[in-house]
Amino acid sequence: MSEIRLPKGFKSAGVACGIKKDGKKDLALIISEPASEAAGVFTKNIVKGHSLKYTMKNIQNNIKAIAINSGNANACIGARGDADAERFACAVAKLAGCGKEQVLIGSTGVIGFPLPIEKIESGLDEACMQLCTDNSLNAACAIMTTDTFPKEVCIEMNLSGKKATLYGMAKGSGMIHPNMATMIGVLLTDASISKELLQKALSVIVNKSFNRISVDGDTSVCDMVIVLANGKAANEKITRENDDYKTFAEALEKAAVTLSKMLVRDGEGATKLIEIHVKNAPDGETAHKITNSIAKSPLVKTAMFGQDANWGRILTAAGYSGASFNPDLVDILIGDLLVCSNGTGLDFNEERALEILKQNEIIITVDLKNGTSEDVMWTCDFSYDYVKINGSYRT
Amino acid sequence: MSEIRLPKGFKSAGVACGIKKDGKKDLALIISEPASEAAGVFTKNIVKGHSLKYTMKNIQNNIKAIAINSGNANACIGARGDADAERFACAVAKLAGCGKEQVLIGSTGVIGFPLPIEKIESGLDEACMQLCTDNSLNAACAIMTTDTFPKEVCIEMNLSGKKATLYGMAKGSGMIHPNMATMIGVLLTDASISKELLQKALSVIVNKSFNRISVDGDTSVCDMVIVLANGKAANEKITRENDDYKTFAEALEKAAVTLSKMLVRDGEGATKLIEIHVKNAPDGETAHKITNSIAKSPLVKTAMFGQDANWGRILTAAGYSGASFNPDLVDILIGDLLVCSNGTGLDFNEERALEILKQNEIIITVDLKNGTSEDVMWTCDFSYDYVKINGSYRT
Repeated sequence: MSEIRLPKGFKSAGVACGIKKDGKKDLALIISEPASEAAGVFTKNIVKGHSLKYTMKNIQNNIKAIAINSGNANACIGARGDADAERFACAVAKLAGCGKEQVLIGSTGVIGFPLPIEKIESGLDEACMQLCTDNSLNAACAIMTTDTFPKEVCIEMNLSGKKATLYGMAKGSGMIHPNMATMIGVLLTDASISKELLQKALSVIVNKSFNRISVDGDTSVCDMVIVLANGKAANEKITRENDDYKTFAEALEKAAVTLSKMLVRDGEGATKLIEIHVKNAPDGETAHKITNSIAKSPLVKTAMFGQDANWGRILTAAGYSGASFNPDLVDILIGDLLVCSNGTGLDFNEERALEILKQNEIIITVDLKNGTSEDVMWTCDFSYDYVKINGSYRT
Repeated sequence: MSEIRLPKGFKSAGVACGIKKDGKKDLALIISEPASEAAGVFTKNIVKGHSLKYTMKNIQNNIKAIAINSGNANACIGARGDADAERFACAVAKLAGCGKEQVLIGSTGVIGFPLPIEKIESGLDEACMQLCTDNSLNAACAIMTTDTFPKEVCIEMNLSGKKATLYGMAKGSGMIHPNMATMIGVLLTDASISKELLQKALSVIVNKSFNRISVDGDTSVCDMVIVLANGKAANEKITRENDDYKTFAEALEKAAVTLSKMLVRDGEGATKLIEIHVKNAPDGETAHKITNSIAKSPLVKTAMFGQDANWGRILTAAGYSGASFNPDLVDILIGDLLVCSNGTGLDFNEERALEILKQNEIIITVDLKNGTSEDVMWTCDFSYDYVKINGSYRT
């Protein structure tokens, strides 16, 4: 991981345009010079926000600008929502000096209220004046909703002798669950890579990162991960799956996993990051059904919050996951402590268990002992604050 | 609904045998004289408790006795768990004067600790002395775990001129979710009915009642619904799907739905019963995918707790349910208040919404306007107390 900075050719800004009642930053603007190759992965929810639909339509173009507002999802508004998305993109295009089809937009926040589009238009003017290459934090803050900290990552890589940089920012932190794109993630790089390989790398990596996290099992209507590559690093353009592609894909995976874990750590009300491993499964699908079921179980998540080594709930969640396995072979570890062997509870050291459960990162391992496949997911605990945050989000 | 009483030929008792630390009742015993036809529906969790497995094996027999302990699930104990289940059943058989294969047992509570079988054996002796026909409440209390009130129902019916009675008791109240049998339910009747039709009626009705409720999406390893019919009402035995069968099936459905709603109302930490209707769907499966997704959504459930008319979360949960529908046709009502029309939010009266959401029963209706099928599920809200109860259940 490197010091956070934008790759060459990118500028960003984040301002408060008045969507959020508390006066916090709520509008981010990113400009790419020259225009970037772009790729994206979008929510599988069949209800889709209007801004998201605009971006899905334009992701195939070369992209000059990204603008994202928080505080309002621009979703479920009818024809006006689509019109507002167009107007949002046109305002950005005017400032960026490009066609509106070269603009990607995102909106995140409450559903069902019209976008205050005039505020956004004024805000974009201000953001444009504040664009800079040396402060990415304002934009990262401007996309936050219930997040408690901004999420940024920066990775440097060497592509056949040329230094390239990959920057990423993301926001959570409720409605976080596969499938895809359970949040907004923006990745920017100055590497030169073909659109096809950029999309391929993103699609593969999303399944190892953003699709492997769960806060509450809800999949939002506005969520997406997009990546822009503007080629300013002047490396030989990656057009084949050669060593440079591998280097780039590794950097992308590292950035995506880092952001994903940040999202879970900042899950609404979360006090702990919980990593769930299933190993020695007959196949990847079986392993994933089980990690997914455990990651979603409110009973497992409340037990983790309560520092209770209640492995019975872990085995129970595996049992109703829909995966086929022999419960009488299963071992379960909490951290490095074996608590269940061959499906049977052990008389383990409760003090040692409590020590492990007091940590803010907990690894749960479920060993099926019937194969060689594995799966990993990250989730968080369920606390009083999850209920508090979500009991009155809209009002 | 009638005054609660046991049908003819049944006796029950409930005692405290020392499994629960707080000295509350934890062992229920029911005797049927003569032996009953029996039917059951059991958890689909592939991890199954040892007592449950014993009962699944013996449900095809004529049954003389049922015994259920709370406070310990007798699950995930290995060979000892199976041996304890046998020993439990043998002790009951001795008292009931029947073969051990004529006994059904159930255990509910914490997973992974050996059953204190000596305590149960002593407790059974005491329960046997307390067996009576005129107090079913002790047994209903003895099967409770985190339940805050006992759940009983009684329905009388007329079967071709003979009066028959159906009694039911159930316990929740966490790990409540389809599929089946997300709790323990015991139904007793003096009606005379063939084993085949008894099983058929139960299987059909479970899908309209116990499989239509959700507290937390978790499916327990010990849960079952069993029904005994001892024929003491002396009606002409029901062996065909005639009018008497319909009368019986209606009574069974009414009892099962009543108990199911009680379970949800007493869901861990619940303050509200939420009924979710999907109507005008192209088919039942589509409708059910949507009711199920909404019933499970922590974001919907916390919004209900917070009395927040956040219909966007309802539409979002429908959108990721896996069901195929046109979001632009969807109407959503909270109570009788239309809050979303054709997928678009309305400027509804927030005061009226708050009035509705303050009630302890809330009906959410999602109208797909694309067909004639419908589905109903019952769930509860997600409160601070859910987290509190489940953060330290085991310890």
